[in-house]
Amino acid sequence: MNAIDLSPILTEMIDATTKGYPVSAAPLPLSAIGAQGWSLLEGDLPLPLAVIRESALAHNHAWMRDFTVATGVRLAPHGKTTMAPQIFAQQLAAGAWGMTVANVQQLAVCARFGVRRVLMANQLLGALEVRSVIGLLREHADLDFHFLVDSPAQLAAVEAAALTDPPPRKLTALIELGVPGGRAGVRTHEAALALARAIAASHVVALSGLECYEGLQISGDAAEDALTVTALMQRVKELAIACDGEGLFAGRDVILTAGGSAAFDIVARELPMRLSRPVLTILRSGCYVTHDSGNYERLLAGVKARSGGEWQTRPGLQPALEVWSRVQSCPEPALAILTMGKRDASYDIEMPIALKRYRARAGAAPRPVPAGWTITSMNDQHAYLRCGADEADPPQVGDLIGCGISHPCTTFDKWRVLFTVDDAYRVTGAIRTYF
Amino acid sequence: MNAIDLSPILTEMIDATTKGYPVSAAPLPLSAIGAQGWSLLEGDLPLPLAVIRESALAHNHAWMRDFTVATGVRLAPHGKTTMAPQIFAQQLAAGAWGMTVANVQQLAVCARFGVRRVLMANQLLGALEVRSVIGLLREHADLDFHFLVDSPAQLAAVEAAALTDPPPRKLTALIELGVPGGRAGVRTHEAALALARAIAASHVVALSGLECYEGLQISGDAAEDALTVTALMQRVKELAIACDGEGLFAGRDVILTAGGSAAFDIVARELPMRLSRPVLTILRSGCYVTHDSGNYERLLAGVKARSGGEWQTRPGLQPALEVWSRVQSCPEPALAILTMGKRDASYDIEMPIALKRYRARAGAAPRPVPAGWTITSMNDQHAYLRCGADEADPPQVGDLIGCGISHPCTTFDKWRVLFTVDDAYRVTGAIRTYF
Repeated sequence: MNAIDLSPILTEMIDATTKGYPVSAAPLPLSAIGAQGWSLLEGDLPLPLAVIRESALAHNHAWMRDFTVATGVRLAPHGKTTMAPQIFAQQLAAGAWGMTVANVQQLAVCARFGVRRVLMANQLLGALEVRSVIGLLREHADLDFHFLVDSPAQLAAVEAAALTDPPPRKLTALIELGVPGGRAGVRTHEAALALARAIAASHVVALSGLECYEGLQISGDAAEDALTVTALMQRVKELAIACDGEGLFAGRDVILTAGGSAAFDIVARELPMRLSRPVLTILRSGCYVTHDSGNYERLLAGVKARSGGEWQTRPGLQPALEVWSRVQSCPEPALAILTMGKRDASYDIEMPIALKRYRARAGAAPRPVPAGWTITSMNDQHAYLRCGADEADPPQVGDLIGCGISHPCTTFDKWRVLFTVDDAYRVTGAIRTYF
Repeated sequence: MNAIDLSPILTEMIDATTKGYPVSAAPLPLSAIGAQGWSLLEGDLPLPLAVIRESALAHNHAWMRDFTVATGVRLAPHGKTTMAPQIFAQQLAAGAWGMTVANVQQLAVCARFGVRRVLMANQLLGALEVRSVIGLLREHADLDFHFLVDSPAQLAAVEAAALTDPPPRKLTALIELGVPGGRAGVRTHEAALALARAIAASHVVALSGLECYEGLQISGDAAEDALTVTALMQRVKELAIACDGEGLFAGRDVILTAGGSAAFDIVARELPMRLSRPVLTILRSGCYVTHDSGNYERLLAGVKARSGGEWQTRPGLQPALEVWSRVQSCPEPALAILTMGKRDASYDIEMPIALKRYRARAGAAPRPVPAGWTITSMNDQHAYLRCGADEADPPQVGDLIGCGISHPCTTFDKWRVLFTVDDAYRVTGAIRTYF
């Protein structure tokens, strides 16, 4: 159903105005970058540089495929993480049902490159946005698109926007259930059921399922999170039963969807249910695909602890995204200044995590950094790496430092092109993002 | 000397894969966007959207031109703020001496579009980066480029990289003076003078001046900042006198440069001096060009307080950068969820500042938001706008909210294309960024 065409990306010419591309290299079509023999460690690439470790990426695709197969749920990975159609294509090839997006621009990127099943985990509104969706539905007869509704006001806005430009088929919406103190989403069962009735009565919108997002409630305490998320899934199921009982769902299937990257295991266990028509239980995890070295690495412990023996013993998700930079100055004992900053690596949850060091020498390989080396802050274009005052082998000007990141989304959006690398940090290809 | 050619930007085709571009609009060359008659308030553009208020931008260009003319200093605005050659061209047309960059990729963007005087306010190192600079010097005989040196190790690395690829003319470097507890930069007079002697003796690098950055020490207390920054400028001048006395400077002029966007007035007052050859005193402020509605707006009070009558009474810098989004949900009293997030607006110093609201109606215009409306947090794609519980006119689903931002750099890097707008929010053009 999804028929991905990456040719506009693969043929796009990339040149040295793109961050990460060697200044002296001639422009190349993106697909030719992997054949240049460039190596990060051999000094072929300017720093800072964001790289995706291809082996870890492949591992994560397989891990999540196995997890969804084992638990019997479907996956519509959140595309906002990478906004990279090349990675979307890999996710779909690994068995994903479709993609998730956050807004209509992201939907348009999906549609442009051939994704045909898209959830928008967000409210659709704005006359232009509604008419844009209608235009995409008209353009792509096989586009299966579902957005969130959480208020009568929003429903009325969608209906009003469609008045002058009737959609070729009904728009399909999921009711978002929310929690008190949370983000969007209907707060009570009664209000949600009333909204479901309003949608079922709409001439423009049909009710295709229910949605919620448990990720904002996650504490990191595996047991506590299980209780919290289970309670939310229970609310979704109660609403589903009520809507099903009243015949409010319109589609062949009923979509029930939840699941970020922190507690998708609980969703996979608790959300599946039976209704009078087939239920599609869809996870929307996005960050699993590159995982990270901070926030999601910590949260994965909870996923594994809750998921039983096999998932505790097999290798978990692996951090695939790293940002490399160079020590440009060691101006004081215990301080090294690196050539990367807020323009290059995530800082919204925590600072980048120094993982590896490399000093060019014949036969040298990256080594783990000593315990305690910590990036304590970043400016726009600099990072502060703090070390011990009596390091046996302190950082030196010119050293390369490889950092893991925490929260992949906010690193991806800083790079228009990211290179994929093999385990020796040789460039194997390039990934284009659309932020 | 700088001969800007924007034609590759103006002819670039922009399409709906670019955030902010209407999904249903046909692809257009960037230069045609301003003639489409698009209006933010009339609903022609998808949200979220970053816009640059053209009148404020023009005002800021003129303000800084007047300030540098009045104080007799030159300006090499930090291009890292916008990374927009179209704005670089405006800055140069307004009298800027050249541009400042943070790394070799940014230098390459400057060189590509015709900027010929560039300071790199950062250490140059890495064999590839050094050879890239040499390549650019060879390509552009009139490229006048100066980078920072702060250690013998870095100097040695630059010299080693140039061994196999001799530069067409000597590389020109500024010694960076740093402060204890600060970022990069030589910490003591003695070490800096020793480094100056080493550069003067180099066969590859010549000493063209001195640099420091006062911006990280700024407290916001106008008087205290004056003392701190004056002391740093004094150190620069003492080092300049010593280097001049020993004949270590190599150029026709001596470059002395400092000055971010927080205390450039002190630099303009305290740094100029006489030496045995002409001195170019160069400010490097970047954020002045769009200013902001938070951090720099607060710091501007200190600039004005210290700069005397005229600068206190004339209108100061004006915030030119806004991010507009829509109320997508009002799920609880006193809470509105907006369609923008960390992908769209700065959050590194503080959250976006809600400034304006707009509800589409004949004859309506944006109004200031009531006092107390505050964005308390953002997720990747959402913002939380908190209001009073008893608002006379609370936010409604569908309302547009215009936000000022705090620290323009980290908003610019989230947009590949930003639209310029007139005071009625009609699109007048498009600005391409190169992050």
